[in-house]
Amino acid sequence: MGNTEKGKLIVVSGPSGAGKSTVVFKAINGREDMCFSTSVTSRKPRPGEIDGREYFFIDRERFEKMVESDELLEHAVYVGNYYGTPRKFVEDKLDAGNSVFLDIEVQGARQVKEKKPDAVMVFLIPPTLDELRKRLEKRGTESEETICNRLSRAREEYAEADFYDYIVVNDDPDIAAAELNAILLAEKCRFSARKHMLAEA
Amino acid sequence: MGNTEKGKLIVVSGPSGAGKSTVVFKAINGREDMCFSTSVTSRKPRPGEIDGREYFFIDRERFEKMVESDELLEHAVYVGNYYGTPRKFVEDKLDAGNSVFLDIEVQGARQVKEKKPDAVMVFLIPPTLDELRKRLEKRGTESEETICNRLSRAREEYAEADFYDYIVVNDDPDIAAAELNAILLAEKCRFSARKHMLAEA
Repeated sequence: MGNTEKGKLIVVSGPSGAGKSTVVFKAINGREDMCFSTSVTSRKPRPGEIDGREYFFIDRERFEKMVESDELLEHAVYVGNYYGTPRKFVEDKLDAGNSVFLDIEVQGARQVKEKKPDAVMVFLIPPTLDELRKRLEKRGTESEETICNRLSRAREEYAEADFYDYIVVNDDPDIAAAELNAILLAEKCRFSARKHMLAEA
Repeated sequence: MGNTEKGKLIVVSGPSGAGKSTVVFKAINGREDMCFSTSVTSRKPRPGEIDGREYFFIDRERFEKMVESDELLEHAVYVGNYYGTPRKFVEDKLDAGNSVFLDIEVQGARQVKEKKPDAVMVFLIPPTLDELRKRLEKRGTESEETICNRLSRAREEYAEADFYDYIVVNDDPDIAAAELNAILLAEKCRFSARKHMLAEA
């Protein structure tokens, strides 16, 4: 047990503004056996960004080779740049007993579920879409049009979310983080994950 | 949410001496939304036992009528007396938002799973069967023969346990209780239990 137990891969998706990274950072805070995945991207580093911290920065050619040779668990294009989840980074962490969180969109999540069927799929939502609108308005950084687009995208995601295992509602981020931790612990107790103990007893 | 959410039925089985009731009492300690089920029995109350606390004490005729009219989620005979889990007691608690723990043997657990397919099935085991032997010997209340029978029954139960959802290992009762609580919380977050929230968003 403990160090020898493999980590779990936890995919967290949900509408933009639901608070995914806040909740995941709260869940992993102080835990050495849990981490966020680091993505690879073809976009150029911004001032202050460090290779291997915010992202692994690679060129388009290398990225395309990674796609071809199945080195990514999922990938997508965003504003003309590639983004993806490096398989080896994730698998090395899992093998070392660390649980790894991925914060990705529904379409990327579906790709991960296909390649890693035992990934734990969590859909994180705000209490209501009205509440999501209020949070986005409060930020004051997005135009009314952008907010409308996000809400409309959220509704689409809700309709596509039927392959997730769990729903966490982010009303209070501490409660949501506690639910995420409970899900992770419960998944480690699953019969399939521990049945070897019955044979070894 | 909260008070309006239905409780979960959690069945805990495992070898005699694994520490089921210790762990469940730790898990429900101080929690008003969780309780142990109270069984019905046809045996006579012992001095100090109170009807509705240790058991609901009824006569054999009434017990047999309860079996006929499907008022029990499971029942068994032990040393010539009937024992069973009253369906109405459990369902009333669940409807009121309380989660209910049942401490029953593998065969009774199978009956409950058939009648309540969404019951959460937990198999609680000692770290090893050697450890179980040590715990039983330490009690000093059982003969060598009884201990051998219990270990042999434990091995049978391990072989029949494939319908459980989770395995909790009772090495440290506090950790085992935390795992039980995590399982309960995670089950409340299941997609099937919360998908109505996506439609209502």
